[in-house]
Amino acid sequence: MDAVIDRGTLRIGIAEEDFLPWIGRDKAGKLLGFEVDVAHDLARVLGVRPEFVETPFGDLLNGLVAGRFDVVISAYSVTAERARLALFSVPYGQTDYYLLLDNNKLPKSASEGDYDVEGFKIGVIADTIGEAISARSFTKAEIVPFPDDEASRDALSKGEVGAIIAATPIPNFMMLAEPDRYAIGSEALFSSSEAVAVRPDSLRFVNFIDAWIEENQANGRLQAAREYWFDTLEWEQRLSKGDEPADQPAE
Amino acid sequence: MDAVIDRGTLRIGIAEEDFLPWIGRDKAGKLLGFEVDVAHDLARVLGVRPEFVETPFGDLLNGLVAGRFDVVISAYSVTAERARLALFSVPYGQTDYYLLLDNNKLPKSASEGDYDVEGFKIGVIADTIGEAISARSFTKAEIVPFPDDEASRDALSKGEVGAIIAATPIPNFMMLAEPDRYAIGSEALFSSSEAVAVRPDSLRFVNFIDAWIEENQANGRLQAAREYWFDTLEWEQRLSKGDEPADQPAE
Amino acid sequence: MDAVIDRGTLRIGIAEEDFLPWIGRDKAGKLLGFEVDVAHDLARVLGVRPEFVETPFGDLLNGLVAGRFDVVISAYSVTAERARLALFSVPYGQTDYYLLLDNNKLPKSASEGDYDVEGFKIGVIADTIGEAISARSFTKAEIVPFPDDEASRDALSKGEVGAIIAATPIPNFMMLAEPDRYAIGSEALFSSSEAVAVRPDSLRFVNFIDAWIEENQANGRLQAAREYWFDTLEWEQRLSKGDEPADQPAE
Repeated sequence: MDAVIDRGTLRIGIAEEDFLPWIGRDKAGKLLGFEVDVAHDLARVLGVRPEFVETPFGDLLNGLVAGRFDVVISAYSVTAERARLALFSVPYGQTDYYLLLDNNKLPKSASEGDYDVEGFKIGVIADTIGEAISARSFTKAEIVPFPDDEASRDALSKGEVGAIIAATPIPNFMMLAEPDRYAIGSEALFSSSEAVAVRPDSLRFVNFIDAWIEENQANGRLQAAREYWFDTLEWEQRLSKGDEPADQPAE
Repeated sequence: MDAVIDRGTLRIGIAEEDFLPWIGRDKAGKLLGFEVDVAHDLARVLGVRPEFVETPFGDLLNGLVAGRFDVVISAYSVTAERARLALFSVPYGQTDYYLLLDNNKLPKSASEGDYDVEGFKIGVIADTIGEAISARSFTKAEIVPFPDDEASRDALSKGEVGAIIAATPIPNFMMLAEPDRYAIGSEALFSSSEAVAVRPDSLRFVNFIDAWIEENQANGRLQAAREYWFDTLEWEQRLSKGDEPADQPAE
Repeated sequence: MDAVIDRGTLRIGIAEEDFLPWIGRDKAGKLLGFEVDVAHDLARVLGVRPEFVETPFGDLLNGLVAGRFDVVISAYSVTAERARLALFSVPYGQTDYYLLLDNNKLPKSASEGDYDVEGFKIGVIADTIGEAISARSFTKAEIVPFPDDEASRDALSKGEVGAIIAATPIPNFMMLAEPDRYAIGSEALFSSSEAVAVRPDSLRFVNFIDAWIEENQANGRLQAAREYWFDTLEWEQRLSKGDEPADQPAE
C-alpha cells in the first residue's frame, strides 16, 4: 500500500476479455463497466492514478504474483485455490449463476428438470468457477469450454450447445430479447463472491480495502454503482463512443 | 496488543464532545454512553484497566497515529480516508442518517420532497461523514457546519437552520418531544458503520477485536447494550449524577 | 501456512469427546461428523494430508499454542478469551443454545417461564461457552457441569437434573424421541459462532481460511454439508461401521 502511494499509481490487473456489465470497452478501446468504476474509486481514495493492465483472465493470478500489478479488480471470485497465492479482501459483489437453456435443444429428460444427460452440451467459460462447478454438477452432459462470455453466448445462439452457465444479469437480458427461445433451468446453481485480490505480503492493504468496501456498502455508493450497471442499460450508449476517430487515446 | 497487556492499561481515544446516547458525561464529568460501555468491555476481556483520553473528535485520528492512545472507540465510522492511517476492526455498530426538518422553515419545493434549493440551510457536524455526504447530496442548499451535535440541534431549535442531518435515535427523540414541529425528510440518506480503529502496525490486535465483536454479537450482549442506550431513556437519570458535590473524582 | 504445505500435512486439533453431529467416532474409532468433513476439505484445498490430533476439548487452546497442531477445527466458538492466545477465521458455523426441560422436574415458577430458582438443577458441559453464559443467566438455580454432551444428556434422562443447556440440533432430536417428556424453555438463550483457530503468528493463513469459507458459503457446499449432518440422520448408519473387526486401522 505504501509502495502504491509512493509511486502515485495503482496498477490494476483486469481481464482483457469483455464481460459486460462488469468489464468492456467502447469502440475506441476505452475500458468501462462496474469493475472499472470500482477500480477508479479505489485509486481515488488512495490518492493515486489508476493504471489498468489488461491481461487474459486466466493469467491474472500469475500476473499479480509476478508483480505486474498491485491488485486484481476483475469480477474476481474468491476461491481457496487463488488464496494460496494471493490475499482477498471482503467481497464487494455477488454473482448468481443459472443454467440458461435453448428451448429448441432440450433433452427429453428436461420435463423432469434433468439436464445432466449424455449428448447434452453445456457451454461454460474456461478457467472460471462456472467451469469448476459445472464439472461437479453435470457428470453426464458434455461441458464445452469457451474462451470468454461472448463466445459462450454465441455458441448458444447458433445452436452449438443446448445450454450455457450464465451469470446475472445475462439470463435476464437474453430472455428479454428472445422470450420464446430462452429459459432458466433452475434456481441459481451456485453463487460466487467477488473481491479485490492483492499480493500475499499485503495484509495491511487488505484491511484498508476492507474499510473502503465497508464504507461504500454502508453509504450506498456501491449499491448505486451496481444498480447503474446491472439494473439499467443506460450505459449501452457509451459502447458506441469512439466509433468515429477518437479525440483522445484510449485509457 | 502485547504492549497493552504488559502495560495493564488500554488507552482509549474518545470524543470530548457529547453525542449521547453514544458518548456523554454526567454532571460530575464522568463518561457514560454506549461507546463507553463498549470500551470498558474491551478492556475487561484484555484483563487491563481502561484509560479514557478525551480528545476533540476531529483530532482522534492524529492522536491515534501519534501514539496518544491504543484504540479509538468513539462512534467512529469506518472510512477509507481514515483507513489510510489506521486499521479498522469489523463494525460493532451501524448508524442511519436522516434529514430532520423544521416544519416552520420548509422551502416551497418541500411538497415535492425537494430540499436541495438555494437559501435552505442544512446543519451538519463538522469533520464527520454526515458533512461529507451532505456536500454530495445537497449541492444547492447551504451546508452549515457546527462543532458538535448539541450545537447543531440548538441551531435547529432556534430556527437558525431549516434542517439538520441527524443520526438515529435523535430524530425519534426530537419528534417525540415536538411532534408538530419536526419531521423526517426521507428514507435514511445513508448509513455508516462504527468500528474500533487501531494503529497500522496492529493487525494481530484487529483479529482479537474482531473475535470479541463476533462473540458479543452471537451471544446477544452487544444487542442488549444497544437496546439499553438506543431504545430506552433509563440512562437519563444517570446524567444528573454528580449534580451535588461528587463523592468520588470523575473518571 | 507455508509450513503446512511444505510438510504436506495439516495437523488438526479436534475434541476427543463426542459431540455428534459435529464430532463422533464409528465403532472402529474412525472420526466422523460435520467438523471432520470441514477439516478434510481444508486439507484438500491446501493440497495436504489431514492428521487429526484428538485432544480433550478443554486442552485444545493449549495444544494449539504449544504447536501440537496447526489449526483447531472442533465446533470451536469464537471468544475474546481464546483470541488472546489464538487467531480466529471468520465463522463457518453458528449454534443456537436452548434450555431443554424435563417436564417431570419443572419448578412451580415454570408456569411463569421462570426456571432460575433455588434447587433447580441445570446441566451444562464444563469449560464451554454454555457454562459461562449459564452462570450469568441463572444465578439462583444450581449449574451442574458435566464432562461432555453425552453425560449431560444422560443426567437429564436419568432425572438427575431438571434441565440442560443444549445446542441445536439436540433439543429437536430429544423432543422427537420423547415428545411428552421434553420441552424447550424459551427462545434461544444465546448463540455462538464457530470458526477455525490458528496460532497468533498466522495472519496470512487466516486470510486463506477466510477465502475458503467465503467460497464455500457462496457456492453452497458448506450449507450442503450442514444439511447432511444437522437436518438428516442418514449418517447414523455410519456409526455402526467397524462394529465387526475393522479391516483397516482407525484414522
